[in-house]
Amino acid sequence: LTASERAAAEFLELAIELADEARAFVRPRFRSRVSIEAKPDGSPVTEIDTALEARLRERIHARFPEHGVIGEEAGAEHADADWVWVLDPIDGTQSFILGKPTFASLIGLMLLGRPVLGVIEHPALGDRWVGVAGSPTLFNGGPARVRPCAAVADAALSTTGPNWFSDDELTAFDRVRKASKVQHWGGDCIAFGLVASGFIDLVIESSHHLHDFCALVPVVEGAGGLMTDWAGRALGIGSGRRVIAAGDKRAHAEALALLGAGKSW
Amino acid sequence: LTASERAAAEFLELAIELADEARAFVRPRFRSRVSIEAKPDGSPVTEIDTALEARLRERIHARFPEHGVIGEEAGAEHADADWVWVLDPIDGTQSFILGKPTFASLIGLMLLGRPVLGVIEHPALGDRWVGVAGSPTLFNGGPARVRPCAAVADAALSTTGPNWFSDDELTAFDRVRKASKVQHWGGDCIAFGLVASGFIDLVIESSHHLHDFCALVPVVEGAGGLMTDWAGRALGIGSGRRVIAAGDKRAHAEALALLGAGKSW
Repeated sequence: LTASERAAAEFLELAIELADEARAFVRPRFRSRVSIEAKPDGSPVTEIDTALEARLRERIHARFPEHGVIGEEAGAEHADADWVWVLDPIDGTQSFILGKPTFASLIGLMLLGRPVLGVIEHPALGDRWVGVAGSPTLFNGGPARVRPCAAVADAALSTTGPNWFSDDELTAFDRVRKASKVQHWGGDCIAFGLVASGFIDLVIESSHHLHDFCALVPVVEGAGGLMTDWAGRALGIGSGRRVIAAGDKRAHAEALALLGAGKSW
Repeated sequence: LTASERAAAEFLELAIELADEARAFVRPRFRSRVSIEAKPDGSPVTEIDTALEARLRERIHARFPEHGVIGEEAGAEHADADWVWVLDPIDGTQSFILGKPTFASLIGLMLLGRPVLGVIEHPALGDRWVGVAGSPTLFNGGPARVRPCAAVADAALSTTGPNWFSDDELTAFDRVRKASKVQHWGGDCIAFGLVASGFIDLVIESSHHLHDFCALVPVVEGAGGLMTDWAGRALGIGSGRRVIAAGDKRAHAEALALLGAGKSW
């Protein structure tokens, strides 16, 4: 057994428990009136984000007190542990606040700084993607699989919104957008699950923190796709904020070339 | 009783039947593999759009053979009748195809060219907005109500995507975007329902046909909001493709002024 495979056997059960907790906690609170605050970077956080992250942390501490935890809302604990859980209680908080059903809870696990397990729990629909390094990704218990896409010209491309890109990044993104077949906006992390399930070919984002991408990597790659930064580097602790996921390595390579023309990211 | 109130009493029952049919037909087909074709304007249509519209037309013909029907896929029949149903079997076909849960079925009814009844049926979540001219809008059977928003600077603004605007339109839209508090992308017609429910303050779109906006007007206005074209004119048969919905008349007026600066739409 590799260390990654050990993770699956030992830790998947807890990851599923965390996803169950997220589903039960978030679903009845969707479109309720919640108190909203602005974080120092201006992004919103609700009492739901904060309360759910605390609950998830408690379960992790109770079960594996030696593990680290990094969460969007409450920061890092034991981030130098071999095994570190990475939590985004509500990815797409803005969607959640506006009543749009595309937010999700992200539960990731890193071994030595690399993502090895990820769950995308989509409470509004009761959908769930589960990815474990070295194993096929599951969607609602059945296999998820990317679809072939030989070139950007054949690709359906998704991103959350143009306002998330800097001017430089938008110029680079626009090269891919103009070369792609279909462009679609909105969708938060759900779009990465839809790459894994073979509905979308490319997702490109530029404001991803570790808690945004950690859970997504095993989901996309376990379904046969590829997820890296804009320079093609593997994602993990210390990665920058620019990520790209593709169902097909050929579309990924061509999109990287378009993103990188005249600029090294 | 006004003619609009007559519509509610006489025709609401059929509108609900059509929404039930749409929900039952679309929900199990979401994320199934469907055949997709390109329409003459390049936009996609699936076998689900076509088959559902035919089913809805059949029910209307059987019940009110003297009524007209205008649908996105199969065009107009008796469009000169006093009462004309306006159908968009799947609004947000691109979302539907990509697996994003923001598409909906739109069922509208016009009296003498003006929208008097509208249903937004959101099959992915089993949600439904019902609006009838002169009556309070309902969301899943309970009252829906806009929220106050005194100025664009306080507004959460939503639109489907920048690629739907012409260059001129995007310049105008960007004036509102830059003045607004929150900007959010994606969401198709659901965003208009969320204006009615008080989660979003402004929605601005520029590629709306009659079948896209007809059902939305009674939903937004019955909840206390306002929905017009970019010059502030009432929407109906013959309207252009640029629409704006606001929960608060003050934000609507200010957004119109920003859209119209230096340009009459």
